[in-house]
Amino acid sequence: MTDYRIDALQFVNWSEKSLEKLRVGKLDAVHVTVAYHENFRKTIDSITEWNSLFRKHADRIFQGLTAEDIEKAKQSGRTAIFFGFQNPTPIEDDIGLLEVWHRLGVRFMQLSYNNQSLLATGYKEHDDTGVTNMGREVIKEMNRLGMVIDLSHSGERSTLETIELSGRPVAITHANPEFWHPIKRNKSDKVLKALAESGGILGLSLYPFHLKDGSSCELTDFCSMVARLVDLIGIDHIGIGSDLCQDQPASALHWMRNGRWKFSENTDEDFPAMPSWFPDNSGFNFLADGLNKSGFSGEETAKILGNNWYRYMKHSFLPNER
Amino acid sequence: MTDYRIDALQFVNWSEKSLEKLRVGKLDAVHVTVAYHENFRKTIDSITEWNSLFRKHADRIFQGLTAEDIEKAKQSGRTAIFFGFQNPTPIEDDIGLLEVWHRLGVRFMQLSYNNQSLLATGYKEHDDTGVTNMGREVIKEMNRLGMVIDLSHSGERSTLETIELSGRPVAITHANPEFWHPIKRNKSDKVLKALAESGGILGLSLYPFHLKDGSSCELTDFCSMVARLVDLIGIDHIGIGSDLCQDQPASALHWMRNGRWKFSENTDEDFPAMPSWFPDNSGFNFLADGLNKSGFSGEETAKILGNNWYRYMKHSFLPNER
Repeated sequence: MTDYRIDALQFVNWSEKSLEKLRVGKLDAVHVTVAYHENFRKTIDSITEWNSLFRKHADRIFQGLTAEDIEKAKQSGRTAIFFGFQNPTPIEDDIGLLEVWHRLGVRFMQLSYNNQSLLATGYKEHDDTGVTNMGREVIKEMNRLGMVIDLSHSGERSTLETIELSGRPVAITHANPEFWHPIKRNKSDKVLKALAESGGILGLSLYPFHLKDGSSCELTDFCSMVARLVDLIGIDHIGIGSDLCQDQPASALHWMRNGRWKFSENTDEDFPAMPSWFPDNSGFNFLADGLNKSGFSGEETAKILGNNWYRYMKHSFLPNER
Repeated sequence: MTDYRIDALQFVNWSEKSLEKLRVGKLDAVHVTVAYHENFRKTIDSITEWNSLFRKHADRIFQGLTAEDIEKAKQSGRTAIFFGFQNPTPIEDDIGLLEVWHRLGVRFMQLSYNNQSLLATGYKEHDDTGVTNMGREVIKEMNRLGMVIDLSHSGERSTLETIELSGRPVAITHANPEFWHPIKRNKSDKVLKALAESGGILGLSLYPFHLKDGSSCELTDFCSMVARLVDLIGIDHIGIGSDLCQDQPASALHWMRNGRWKFSENTDEDFPAMPSWFPDNSGFNFLADGLNKSGFSGEETAKILGNNWYRYMKHSFLPNER
């Protein structure tokens, strides 16, 4: 069987330099964020900027629409880029916009980012009131279209309810287990088990805030966490969703956090330094070494570094009806 | 060879009644107008309304994206609906929006409606200054994407320049020869010959304003015109683009004419009555009879009623590069 390397969440400022690292890390597919807080029209501007990047770097990247595009990427030595939203703002209050976005190639959408959305509750709210009326309709429509429901930033109740309501397996594209690094943004055993039992998948994050010991996190420690996670939910429901934000300016961090929902304070806060063993997409090679040295077989390592995501995408990107 | 029936321009208010006529007329494909003067965001609302129609009437219509969808329509006894713009307003001043619209299935765009646009001049302006700087870029991008350049409402100079500039055959989806009914909206021999020589195609209009004797136009007279046109440009460059506006309210006519470019006068003007032999899509059966009785062979009639458009679409909907 062919092995695929897939990252289920990146927000990189792409340039010749960062694109070159995609090759070094042998990435066949990456899910990229095209909207955090943008409305419909502003997200269209993200799409036209992406189309310009695709034209300029046609030898390195192209837009992925189906799992077959991952195979096509592998065969041509390029990377298939799949679009996704971290917040449902691009559908505004119009469920009909989901089909428009699906046609434009959007394959992932989070039901909520950090705060309450029209669909569900984010993990930073004091109360999680679960999936809203519109949220229930949106879950059905995403199921119909073949758009992956992503719960990375959702609160626990919203997450568990969505897993229950969704007719198709959902994803948590970028987060880590709470048992390893107990912050609210990481996921409880209960969520992880419900996710795996429903056929869903978790992308493990390399973002320092989600890691034990942050930027100083050791690769061996990360790999021990993976081993413990395999004991909890099995090997088939684990992938990578690095949350890599390479070369982004501090202003991107402020936009992600504050959008337009509050008056942003002028802070000096910037993105944290990445662990030495995951500075950019070359980190996939370090991860492969680390997992092998920690006792994972070649097949197990390949599953974690992309084959599990490939299998999941192959099923999840197909519409339920045509 | 299979025969296809195709109408290259309709703006029908769709209902069970008008959809039923599509079956009676055995239409395999229809190009429908989804924007006259709408900007990008408002045209998206037209698309979501169309998607609702497709869901509601999945047994009768579906969105066509490729010429293969015309075959699929024939095989399943349905009609493939292809989207088009009569004015370039949905791309605003952003050439990048063409690729977005192409991905959303838009397959036709007029460079100008009645007035001056950012791209070219409409037939109602006093001076036609030809294709603009942006127009030249848009022609190249439409050629690349596989979006048909439609010149139905453009002025003569803009039309001739576009035929010259375009790397792929263009279309006049709905108009008649000036030699038969001499109004400025119909096309001169010079335009018709240049169109045919470049491999383009003309859709003959059944809209009373474009017909000799208007609503009282005789079918035999229409068919004599077709015979004379065949003598002028050959049989392979002629199809139908009826401009059927069945069941539209008068407000639609006012929107088409006035958009937001002038303060609309309160008139009682309504759509003109259609000729008795083309009241709706059942008119395709009358046309078939009329052409046969006028001496056209079965093969020639089939070319005019759809096979020519099918051949044209098969080439024109393919991108120049992928």
